[in-house]
Amino acid sequence: MQITAAYTDLYQLTMAQVYFNTKPDGKAVFDYYYRSNPFKGGYAIFTGLEDVLNILENFKFSASDLKYLEQHGFEQAFLDYLKDFKFNGTINSSKEGDVVFPNRPILQVEANIIEAQIIETVLLNILNFQTLIATKASRIRYSAQNETLLDMGLRRAHATGGYYASRAAAIGGFDATSNVIAAEDYGIPSSGTMAHSFIQSYEDELKAFQDFAQHRPKNCVLLIDTYNTLKSGLPKAIQVAKEMESRGEQLMGVRLDSGDLAYLAKKTRKMLDEANLQYVKIVVSNQLDEYVIKSLKEQGAPIDIYGVGTNLVTGKPDASFGGVYKLSEYNGAPRIKLSENLIKVSLPYKKQVYRMIDENGKFYGADAVGLFKEGTLDEMVHPFDINKSLNLERFTHEPLLEKVMENGKRITPSRTVTEIAAYSKSRLEQLPLEYKRFQNPHIYKVGLSNTLKQERDELLKKHKY
Amino acid sequence: MQITAAYTDLYQLTMAQVYFNTKPDGKAVFDYYYRSNPFKGGYAIFTGLEDVLNILENFKFSASDLKYLEQHGFEQAFLDYLKDFKFNGTINSSKEGDVVFPNRPILQVEANIIEAQIIETVLLNILNFQTLIATKASRIRYSAQNETLLDMGLRRAHATGGYYASRAAAIGGFDATSNVIAAEDYGIPSSGTMAHSFIQSYEDELKAFQDFAQHRPKNCVLLIDTYNTLKSGLPKAIQVAKEMESRGEQLMGVRLDSGDLAYLAKKTRKMLDEANLQYVKIVVSNQLDEYVIKSLKEQGAPIDIYGVGTNLVTGKPDASFGGVYKLSEYNGAPRIKLSENLIKVSLPYKKQVYRMIDENGKFYGADAVGLFKEGTLDEMVHPFDINKSLNLERFTHEPLLEKVMENGKRITPSRTVTEIAAYSKSRLEQLPLEYKRFQNPHIYKVGLSNTLKQERDELLKKHKY
Repeated sequence: MQITAAYTDLYQLTMAQVYFNTKPDGKAVFDYYYRSNPFKGGYAIFTGLEDVLNILENFKFSASDLKYLEQHGFEQAFLDYLKDFKFNGTINSSKEGDVVFPNRPILQVEANIIEAQIIETVLLNILNFQTLIATKASRIRYSAQNETLLDMGLRRAHATGGYYASRAAAIGGFDATSNVIAAEDYGIPSSGTMAHSFIQSYEDELKAFQDFAQHRPKNCVLLIDTYNTLKSGLPKAIQVAKEMESRGEQLMGVRLDSGDLAYLAKKTRKMLDEANLQYVKIVVSNQLDEYVIKSLKEQGAPIDIYGVGTNLVTGKPDASFGGVYKLSEYNGAPRIKLSENLIKVSLPYKKQVYRMIDENGKFYGADAVGLFKEGTLDEMVHPFDINKSLNLERFTHEPLLEKVMENGKRITPSRTVTEIAAYSKSRLEQLPLEYKRFQNPHIYKVGLSNTLKQERDELLKKHKY
Repeated sequence: MQITAAYTDLYQLTMAQVYFNTKPDGKAVFDYYYRSNPFKGGYAIFTGLEDVLNILENFKFSASDLKYLEQHGFEQAFLDYLKDFKFNGTINSSKEGDVVFPNRPILQVEANIIEAQIIETVLLNILNFQTLIATKASRIRYSAQNETLLDMGLRRAHATGGYYASRAAAIGGFDATSNVIAAEDYGIPSSGTMAHSFIQSYEDELKAFQDFAQHRPKNCVLLIDTYNTLKSGLPKAIQVAKEMESRGEQLMGVRLDSGDLAYLAKKTRKMLDEANLQYVKIVVSNQLDEYVIKSLKEQGAPIDIYGVGTNLVTGKPDASFGGVYKLSEYNGAPRIKLSENLIKVSLPYKKQVYRMIDENGKFYGADAVGLFKEGTLDEMVHPFDINKSLNLERFTHEPLLEKVMENGKRITPSRTVTEIAAYSKSRLEQLPLEYKRFQNPHIYKVGLSNTLKQERDELLKKHKY
């Protein structure tokens, strides 16, 4: 499957057909944002922007797409329009890798409403998933502290979504991936050990280790739990490590993939150290996530490298990220989406978001949303509680949305996964600890300018029933 | 991203390099199976086979893959081998769409061990995900009974995994998808209504409905919850339905996407009926799954069409399917993978699986696994409990694994999604109800032939520590 402009929901095209017939020149502003943090955490890591921009620059209907649509009731004049379709809009966005929070625009699309609508699905599809996975990865990184993290999830990923999962994991703080094609395309370090089947294909575990060490001496990690970790796998791995030493080589590590990892890691470390193999690392895997790794750390398990699969690449337990795309302005006029649930009411107009930076260069814990045309803000108010406001004059104001695409063309240089990961790391370092803890994290404030709140409240009144 | 042979885990290539140097002619048999049913249910729907076979027929390393591997420590002779790599193996498989159960081979790969290893990741990646989603879809179908089911999940799917999710949903019993590219490629009916943004782009909800009905009169469904469902959206939709009648057209339906769906559907039905619009259907959406639909049915909500998104395409709450790929035979000798957990011990040798069919053509509730060379079986025994056995002589024995690929070429005709969906439906009809219920479903028996059990037990003894 190639991503063409048919990578969309049918209703986008149905609506587009009607716009085409009735108001083909409508100018829309759509906001991409989300309403609550994933994993009951205190933040999300905005990820996927580079992929979206690359896709949008080449978002065209193929000949077979057009034929399909012709057979499904679309009119000829509209099909002619789709034949030359391209996205000509402008995108203002947070930087990829930034720490973001609910209920403020992360990205805004300004475009002809037909174009803005047709790109909605792919934009949500790519940003929602990668943001989910990068956020999960950042939590696992938080637990693992400075130890090495490997993404090994491709076999349990959602088909080709695994390609994007590996990219997002690297941005969220993983050191390497087992996924060769993602490593190749995105410049992520690749890594891998051996499978049980390798050992099983030999009559003898020792011979399996010896062959592997001889032919792949560099970064050699032996899997020691196929038959019995402490009685068979580890003693044989130690023997092979000594044989490697005699050839002037070093065994990199041994891997535990089952059993009680804390207990086995301690026993393994002790036996390795007693054999003077202090340099041999311990790699563990098997249903790890941020909580298991935290527990292993708390038990003092001497683990150097964690391999994480399923829970990382599927973003368990959430499995989805609720980013939405809502119309906020149409032909210059403000638009909101109502809801019986106040928190789901959207914000009208094109906007800018300012992050408050304190005197130490850390995030104070407040993002202020104002109308784009307002410029800097003196005060932000709570979206609904009229007793709550925050004076902003003592902070440095960092504007968060920057223009990255204009008239369908990227206007900022593309960034590598390595650059984005480094940026994300630096932003997480600016975020105080209380927003990063897993249990009841502190709530980061997102407030509105007085003008934006007034505009929204007037629209609420207008649509009252 | 194109799926090339680099769509694999690095360790497959690392192991392959060692095999290439030490035993390039090893013949392996690998089993694909799983250990426990998804969603705490009683079965899974095996899905993804057609995609896997198509991928394997074209599984090659690209020039840039080879360059990447050259830069990452692989030897020239092995790179030359990879340059001409293709999968030349044989695959015996259950039929795609069949109802399957834990701890019996669903598919077996017989191939050179290098080839069998390199294809492992893509095989697991495609089969695990599609089996997860088709199983979820079949559960939603079970709740929805004969009502129409629409897949609307692309925006919350795991990036391009959504393409395969739509295919699997159709096989599991969904009637149509919003996903245009999947509908086009897989021949799935496509469907869609309208978004809130369409209504919001108008000053007036009525005018939005009128424009839409005029320009898309066929299959026209109006979204009625943008401002107020019962006071604004529905009365205006009724007015538009009457205007359509005066033009000789019919409104197909109205859609509810928020609020209490049971309450609103009943009120909506009543108001539609009072306006003599008995033919107008009620479509609902918003975080539906098999349990919500079951509850709506139990409350007598008069709903005709359910649109399901996130919970379907992400396979919540499981989000992954634990299919594994284990070596069962190497150069004719049996192989098992041990585990401290008995249920995780694998089965040696190439095997066949027989399904027991009762006198009414229904599944009796037993699959018997024997050695491939054994042929039909008189008795099956419990894998571990020596007090349990089942005489099989009174049943019709249906062999489940059939050869679908030989020497890397498909030897059975490819089947469309529609054909596979129909087959899956017929197989679920053969499965008694007690295996389909959500709460504590009956456990389908999977037993072994006496010979297979003896062979496995001997290997267990051999590897005892």
